[in-house]
Amino acid sequence: MFLAIEWTSTNFHAWLLDQSGTIQGEHQCPRGVNSVTNKDFAGVVREELAHWLTKVDAIYISGMATSRTGWLESPFATLPARPQDLIKAAVEARPDGLPTVFFLPGLARTLPLPDVMRGEEMAIFGIEGSLPKAIILPGAHSKWVTTDGEAITDLTTYMSGEVFNLLRKDSLVSKLIPADYTPSPEGFDKGLAIARDKRALPGGVLQRIFSARSLVLFDQLPAAGIADYLQGLIIGCEIVEALSGKSQPSEIVVLGQSPIADAYRTALAAFGIASPTRAANAAYGFAKILKQ
Amino acid sequence: MFLAIEWTSTNFHAWLLDQSGTIQGEHQCPRGVNSVTNKDFAGVVREELAHWLTKVDAIYISGMATSRTGWLESPFATLPARPQDLIKAAVEARPDGLPTVFFLPGLARTLPLPDVMRGEEMAIFGIEGSLPKAIILPGAHSKWVTTDGEAITDLTTYMSGEVFNLLRKDSLVSKLIPADYTPSPEGFDKGLAIARDKRALPGGVLQRIFSARSLVLFDQLPAAGIADYLQGLIIGCEIVEALSGKSQPSEIVVLGQSPIADAYRTALAAFGIASPTRAANAAYGFAKILKQ
Repeated sequence: MFLAIEWTSTNFHAWLLDQSGTIQGEHQCPRGVNSVTNKDFAGVVREELAHWLTKVDAIYISGMATSRTGWLESPFATLPARPQDLIKAAVEARPDGLPTVFFLPGLARTLPLPDVMRGEEMAIFGIEGSLPKAIILPGAHSKWVTTDGEAITDLTTYMSGEVFNLLRKDSLVSKLIPADYTPSPEGFDKGLAIARDKRALPGGVLQRIFSARSLVLFDQLPAAGIADYLQGLIIGCEIVEALSGKSQPSEIVVLGQSPIADAYRTALAAFGIASPTRAANAAYGFAKILKQ
Repeated sequence: MFLAIEWTSTNFHAWLLDQSGTIQGEHQCPRGVNSVTNKDFAGVVREELAHWLTKVDAIYISGMATSRTGWLESPFATLPARPQDLIKAAVEARPDGLPTVFFLPGLARTLPLPDVMRGEEMAIFGIEGSLPKAIILPGAHSKWVTTDGEAITDLTTYMSGEVFNLLRKDSLVSKLIPADYTPSPEGFDKGLAIARDKRALPGGVLQRIFSARSLVLFDQLPAAGIADYLQGLIIGCEIVEALSGKSQPSEIVVLGQSPIADAYRTALAAFGIASPTRAANAAYGFAKILKQ
């Protein structure tokens, strides 16, 4: 039996897996890396997983716990990376009172600009069957990933979601958003359309952000639609940037089920790109890696 | 004699002008539109300018005081707009205990997206002689303005400075910036270079922001250089967007003297664009308008 832990900045998610990779148990709590005091990561594992520790041969950890600011840094594996490359590059340790722990590497590309992920690759490798060629992991820092069906070949991080959250929370534009606004699909679609309109309006997102204010001033957007307009605009601009200089794919898998995943699916549909739904479950990624 | 008031959200700046447009006095205080309670704008004018009020024939006001959230809304004048168009479109009123007040209009373009300014046009019209063809008014919301030498013909607002401030203040990236960092011209130049590199790296600012973190992770940028790197990157991306779809001008006037104006001048120089210095003084704009 093995323990697999997806340990992010804000979350601790563990699975008990048998030799065949079947999930025998699951435990989740909010004790993310950021909440661990005095670097007592081993203590958190002993406390949270005491009931399983006697049964397991090894523990596999992925996510921010394996970063410079986490428990023990495992160097990044370079691209292209297959599941077996993660096992080969894992850093092995034997912390007090615990079975052997394997710290799995994150993934890095170095050119033309460095970019990294740590943990998200487990959900990708967990996709059943051959990997989709193009994948988005939606979030405040969305990851665009390409694969050749088996290995992850490229990755790019877009902090667009964080830019959107900052603008929505505390900016010239946020002051106009009514406190009691409700979702506005029309606002989202209008933002998308403005993002895609490159003929009338060249440039990108910087050229367009102020329109979240000026359209309201000219009664072309209700104030209650600003937040969704901005989200449509920024996701649309992200897609334009991600596809620039490349031939447009016919489909991109958006991993997981969430409001932001749905927003990406709606946006991709406006570009004529299909986005078939696939489950995101890091446990399946661990299982695939352990079976290598 | 006339009073000219540039009344922005955060500042109140008044000049006493004689018939020839010569400045006979100046008064400035931080009683911006946002600080005025109970809409008592007339009261602020009476208090601040009591010593001049008996001498003047009329008061001319520009800036946010003339907006929907200010004292009295003057509709926007449309482009192209010359100094005399501002006088023609001014809204005249006679508030209690004051001479006649002329609320000057802001300027608006409506296509392809609406965009506006309110007050910045006074500094532009205040430029001596024929107006430069391309002008940037730097700031958290920088305005790019084109003229035909006499009339303002187009304007575009970039909220890039605000995006930069938000990212520097409270984001994934801001957490990496040391509290005691000092200016890093190398960081600024590196950000500019990444912004301009469209061949190796397509896309725009969204594709590049995360590099403020990943370059640090790969020891290609010192953490102390992140803030300036981000500023160079974002101003560079703004310039790329502003010039896209247009032939590159040989010079762009950056109005005023300030650290952010200097940053734009450095950035434009990297693009091979000259940026001759011109003084920004709204009083000269009022004088030109009054002499029409």
